[in-house]
Amino acid sequence: MSGSAVRWMGEAIALGRSALGETAPNPNVGCVIVRDDRMISGGATGRGGRPHAEKIALDQAGEAARGATLYTSLEPCAHRSDRGPTCAAIIPEAGIARVIIATEDPDPRTAGEGIRALRDRGLSVEVGACAQQARDSMAGYFMRVTKGRPRITLKLALSIDGKIALPSGESKWITGEDARAHVHLERAHADMILVGRGTLRADNPSLDVRLPGLEERSPRRALLTRGDPVEGWETLSSPEQVYDLDGVNELLIEGGSGAATAFLKADLVDRILIYRAPLLIGEGRNSVGYIGLDAIADAHGRWQVSDGKALGIDRLEVYERVRG
Amino acid sequence: MSGSAVRWMGEAIALGRSALGETAPNPNVGCVIVRDDRMISGGATGRGGRPHAEKIALDQAGEAARGATLYTSLEPCAHRSDRGPTCAAIIPEAGIARVIIATEDPDPRTAGEGIRALRDRGLSVEVGACAQQARDSMAGYFMRVTKGRPRITLKLALSIDGKIALPSGESKWITGEDARAHVHLERAHADMILVGRGTLRADNPSLDVRLPGLEERSPRRALLTRGDPVEGWETLSSPEQVYDLDGVNELLIEGGSGAATAFLKADLVDRILIYRAPLLIGEGRNSVGYIGLDAIADAHGRWQVSDGKALGIDRLEVYERVRG
Ligand SMILES: NC(=O)c1ccc[n+]([C@@H]2O[C@H](COP(=O)([O-])OP(=O)(O)OC[C@H]3O[C@@H](n4cnc5c(N)ncnc54)[C@H](OP(=O)(O)O)[C@@H]3O)[C@@H](O)[C@H]2O)c1
Ligand SMILES: NC(=O)c1ccc[n+]([C@@H]2O[C@H](COP(=O)([O-])OP(=O)(O)OC[C@H]3O[C@@H](n4cnc5c(N)ncnc54)[C@H](OP(=O)(O)O)[C@@H]3O)[C@@H](O)[C@H]2O)c1
Repeated sequence: MSGSAVRWMGEAIALGRSALGETAPNPNVGCVIVRDDRMISGGATGRGGRPHAEKIALDQAGEAARGATLYTSLEPCAHRSDRGPTCAAIIPEAGIARVIIATEDPDPRTAGEGIRALRDRGLSVEVGACAQQARDSMAGYFMRVTKGRPRITLKLALSIDGKIALPSGESKWITGEDARAHVHLERAHADMILVGRGTLRADNPSLDVRLPGLEERSPRRALLTRGDPVEGWETLSSPEQVYDLDGVNELLIEGGSGAATAFLKADLVDRILIYRAPLLIGEGRNSVGYIGLDAIADAHGRWQVSDGKALGIDRLEVYERVRG
Repeated sequence: MSGSAVRWMGEAIALGRSALGETAPNPNVGCVIVRDDRMISGGATGRGGRPHAEKIALDQAGEAARGATLYTSLEPCAHRSDRGPTCAAIIPEAGIARVIIATEDPDPRTAGEGIRALRDRGLSVEVGACAQQARDSMAGYFMRVTKGRPRITLKLALSIDGKIALPSGESKWITGEDARAHVHLERAHADMILVGRGTLRADNPSLDVRLPGLEERSPRRALLTRGDPVEGWETLSSPEQVYDLDGVNELLIEGGSGAATAFLKADLVDRILIYRAPLLIGEGRNSVGYIGLDAIADAHGRWQVSDGKALGIDRLEVYERVRG
C-alpha cells in the first residue's frame, strides 16, 4: 500500500473515530474523497447512523467526485434500507473511479456484497488498507456484530494501592480534574454507561458528559441490580444481559466494586481504564472482589498494557484483553 | 555555569551513583579530573567508604593533575581521620588548580571547612554545579546526616488492583523477570533490606543480589518484629528504630503488607517503588492497611510520580514524598 493511501485512510479512520458513541447500532465510519492527492471532502456517520459517511462526503464533493478516489474505513453498505439508497449504489452514480476500503463489513447482510456491487459497476476496488486500525476504531460495532454484545470497558479511579473509596464509601475525589475530564470524553464515546446499584445509592451519579460542545452526547444509563428498576435507568439484572441490549456498540462500566467484580467474573470485560491517583488509601474499599482466581499463574496472560499517559498529576493506564 | 562544567559534574555524579549501597556510612561521592576539556581520571568512593573518590582520581592522574580542574559531587573532607589525610589536604598537594564542588557536605565536621581549606591554599573553588542532582544521588547520606535516619524506600510488587498476594499468601510471581532483576539492582544500591516477620514466615526470602558481578553487594538484612530475634537477621522492633541504625544510608523495605503499613503510618517512607503487573487478583491480600487516613482530601499532596518505565510486561512506578 502506498504512503499516500495510508495517509488518506488514516484521515478517514480519524473522522470515523470522531463519531464514536453517536452512531449505534451503526458503525462509526469515516470517509474521504481524494483527487490529485488532495482531499476534496470528508464525512463521518451521522447521529443515529444516518447519513452514512460516504453519502456526506459525496454530497459535499458534488461534481468534483467524478474520477476521484474514495477512502472509507468500512465496506460501503449494500443492503436495502427504507432510509435511502445503498452506498454501493450512490458511489458509482457520483462518478467515483476508485474505492479503497479498510475492511469488510462483518454484518452478514453486507459482508462482501458492497465490494462486489462496486466491482460489478466497473469501479476499481482495493481492500485491506489499515485494516486493523479501522477495526480498532469501530471495535464496539465489530464486537456487537460478531459476538452479539457491546465492547465492554471497565473504568476505575484507583489509588496506588488499588482502592476505590474509604471504608465509609467516600470516593470524591480520588482523581483530579484532568482525569475526570478524560472520563467525560470516554462517556461521550460510549453508547451506554452502567453502574452498580451500590454506586447509585452512594453517589447518585448523573453520568452525563460535561465537556463543552459534547453535552448532547450523554449516553443511555443502565443499572446493574437484582432489585426493582429505578426511574431514568435501564436495568441489567445480570452481566449476561449485555447480550440482550439493543443498539449498544460501546458499554462503559463506571463501577463500583460489585459491578466490576460481576463483569470480570463473567469474563465480560474487554478493556480496563485505570485512572491512577498518586495517593495511598490503605484501609478502604477494594476495587475488585473474588473473580474466580485460585493461583497467580492463572492471572497471567489475560491483560496487556495498550496505552498509558499522564493526566495532570494522575495517570491513565489502559489494559486490553489478550486476544486469544 | 558552563555547559562543559555541567557535563563533567554529570560524569562525577554518575560515578558516585555507581557506588550507591557500598559506601555507608560514608557518602557515595564521584570525582573526575579534567584538563583541556578532557577527562584525565575519575573515581568513586570505595567499599566501606575508603578510599575517597578524590584520592582515587588523584592517584590515577599522578603528575597529570598539576594545573588541572577537579570536579567532585560533594565538598572534599576536612576532618582528620585515622584512615588517612583529608582530601582538602591532598588536592592542593597534587597540584590541582581549580575545584568545582556540586554541594556542601552536610556533615557538621566538614560543612564549609573543606571549601575554606582549599581556598586558604590558594585554589579557585566554585560551589553549586548540579547541586540538586548531586544531593539526589546521595539522598540516603543526606537524609542520615540531616535527619538521623536512612532514606527509606518501600518496594511492592502489585497487581492492577493493588494486591500483593492471593488470600492463601501466594505471591510468586506477580511480576516477571525484568521487574525482579530491577529489584535486585535496587537491593545492590541499598545498605539494608527489611521485611516483616510475616514475609519471612511466608516466603523465607534470601534478599540477596542475584545480578552478575553484583553478588557481593548483598546488603544487611533486617526483620520488623515485636518478637524474638531470628538468626542471620538484625531486628527492628518498631519503625522508629530506624533512628538507631548504624551505618545505613539507604533502607529498602520489601514488604509485606504489615511492614509497609507500619512504616507508612509512622510517616517513615520517602520513596515508593511499585512494580505493577498487568493482572487482576481480586480477592487477595491488600498491600496497605490502615494508615491513619479518614478523608480522601488528606491523602492528596503527599506523593508525586517521579519516574515510570516499562520493565518487560510490567511497569515500574516511582513515587517520592512531596518535600514540604
Ligand atoms: N473509584 C471509582 O472509580 C468508583 C466508581 C464507582 C463507585 N465507586 C465507589 O464504590 C462504592 C460502591 O461499590 P459497591 O461495590 O458497593 O457497589 P456497586 O458495584 O456500584 O453495586 C453493587 C450492586 O450491584 C448489583 N450487582 C452486583 N453484582 C450483580 C450481579 N452479578 N447481578 C446483578 N446485580 C449485581 C447488586 O445490586 P442489588 O443489591 O440491587 O441487587 C449489588 O448490590 C461506593 O463507595 C462508590 O463511591 C468508586
Ligand atoms: N507483592 C509483594 O511485593 C510482597 C512482598 C513481601 C511479602 N509479600 C506477601 O505479603 C504477605 C506477608 O504480609 P504480612 O502483612 O502478613 O507480613 P509482614 O508485613 O511481612 O509482617 C508482619 C509482621 O511484621 C511485624 N510488625 C508489623 N508492624 C509492626 C510494628 N509496628 N512494630 C513491630 N513489628 C511490626 C509483626 O511481626 P510479629 O508478629 O513478629 O511482631 C507482624 O506480624 C505474604 O503473603 C507475602 O508473600 C508480598
